[in-house]
Amino acid sequence: MTATQPEPDPEQRLIALGLELPPAPAPLAAYVPARRAGNLVFVSGQIPMKDGSLIAQGVVPTDVDPETAVRCAVQCTLNGLAALKAEIGTLSRLRRVVRLGCFVASAAGYHEQPKIANGASELLIEVFGEAGRHARAAVGSVDLPLGAPVEIEFVFEVQ
Amino acid sequence: MTATQPEPDPEQRLIALGLELPPAPAPLAAYVPARRAGNLVFVSGQIPMKDGSLIAQGVVPTDVDPETAVRCAVQCTLNGLAALKAEIGTLSRLRRVVRLGCFVASAAGYHEQPKIANGASELLIEVFGEAGRHARAAVGSVDLPLGAPVEIEFVFEVQ
Amino acid sequence: MTATQPEPDPEQRLIALGLELPPAPAPLAAYVPARRAGNLVFVSGQIPMKDGSLIAQGVVPTDVDPETAVRCAVQCTLNGLAALKAEIGTLSRLRRVVRLGCFVASAAGYHEQPKIANGASELLIEVFGEAGRHARAAVGSVDLPLGAPVEIEFVFEVQ
Repeated sequence: MTATQPEPDPEQRLIALGLELPPAPAPLAAYVPARRAGNLVFVSGQIPMKDGSLIAQGVVPTDVDPETAVRCAVQCTLNGLAALKAEIGTLSRLRRVVRLGCFVASAAGYHEQPKIANGASELLIEVFGEAGRHARAAVGSVDLPLGAPVEIEFVFEVQ
Repeated sequence: MTATQPEPDPEQRLIALGLELPPAPAPLAAYVPARRAGNLVFVSGQIPMKDGSLIAQGVVPTDVDPETAVRCAVQCTLNGLAALKAEIGTLSRLRRVVRLGCFVASAAGYHEQPKIANGASELLIEVFGEAGRHARAAVGSVDLPLGAPVEIEFVFEVQ
Repeated sequence: MTATQPEPDPEQRLIALGLELPPAPAPLAAYVPARRAGNLVFVSGQIPMKDGSLIAQGVVPTDVDPETAVRCAVQCTLNGLAALKAEIGTLSRLRRVVRLGCFVASAAGYHEQPKIANGASELLIEVFGEAGRHARAAVGSVDLPLGAPVEIEFVFEVQ
């Protein structure tokens, strides 16, 4: 499932996976999609927006089934990579993925946040190989912005 | 709404906005208000304490209306800046705001955490200009310490 | 309660406290227990696993009483230190604890997340002295992985 050597061109790898890097998230009034400090880039919490709307809405598993929530985690990750690319120019300047904070809008009693977060983690490893391995916190949230089922924030180390 | 050049004296800017930097939060037994690592300062999650008590209590919007919650986010930010100042001596040594983690105590079905978090984000940009722009994660929480409606933690880069 | 000088050998200190550093958490498929970037080590969210199972399950205080939840926070911290040790070889190379993110699975209306998080914070100060002091965010979560009552993630600065 996971590549074990760094990928030379992560953007080609995304294309090979049939995935499309979306346009960079528009800067919002009160915060920015990504902020660099030294070699670290902190990317804002991403929700599964695609072409201007959420690909699903509600809590897991009551409103949104786990398979759909995994797809949401993938979309959050694509949006996060687009924000990173806008900050550093090209994904090949990524040195390593450092940390993911994954929030899953969860019905009380739903314990499988890690399975949802794996959608993000596995994609990062497929795209970046060893450099994509990261620390992670996955937790349940009572509710998320716009009713998103998943929100993911990122810390990357770059060259 | 937002200044686009760095403010030469952020503490004067706060005064001009009619806002008061509170005394530094007292160090608590088991953790500290701020911790520096290299050029990064991590500030502990701040709740809207003012003069020793919360300015509001409960979840949004059931117990606390959104306008009040925005004022809570402003107070959290003032407390966070006080913690930063106690760590580095003067706010003019801030290089940039890096990241906010904003937790909003939310009734199920409440999706507008970003509007609440904007209270913090807009203040930081008014005070610091471009240096105040930051990455952010805003999420809902089932409950927060002391029944606070909002808790915000911060990462700053300093000189 | 707290030591005020750095401990020369934190692993000896753990033994003196009657606590056992568990085996390093096994690397999971999609993420890793710890990830280093420069002098910072980010440790993944730890749940109170001991000898392969959770020491308690459910939300606080309905299913799990606060005293048990404090013990969960201690176990999360032992697991986090084991992950740190596996990354850097020995705990004596820790320079300082920087940040804890503590999530407490909370019934609505439960406000005492800081008391639970103190289980982690006090242990870190007992083990590392001044170097153990840290910034912290403690928040309530509607539900956590596997039904854990507590999840804690860590940022450490190392030599």
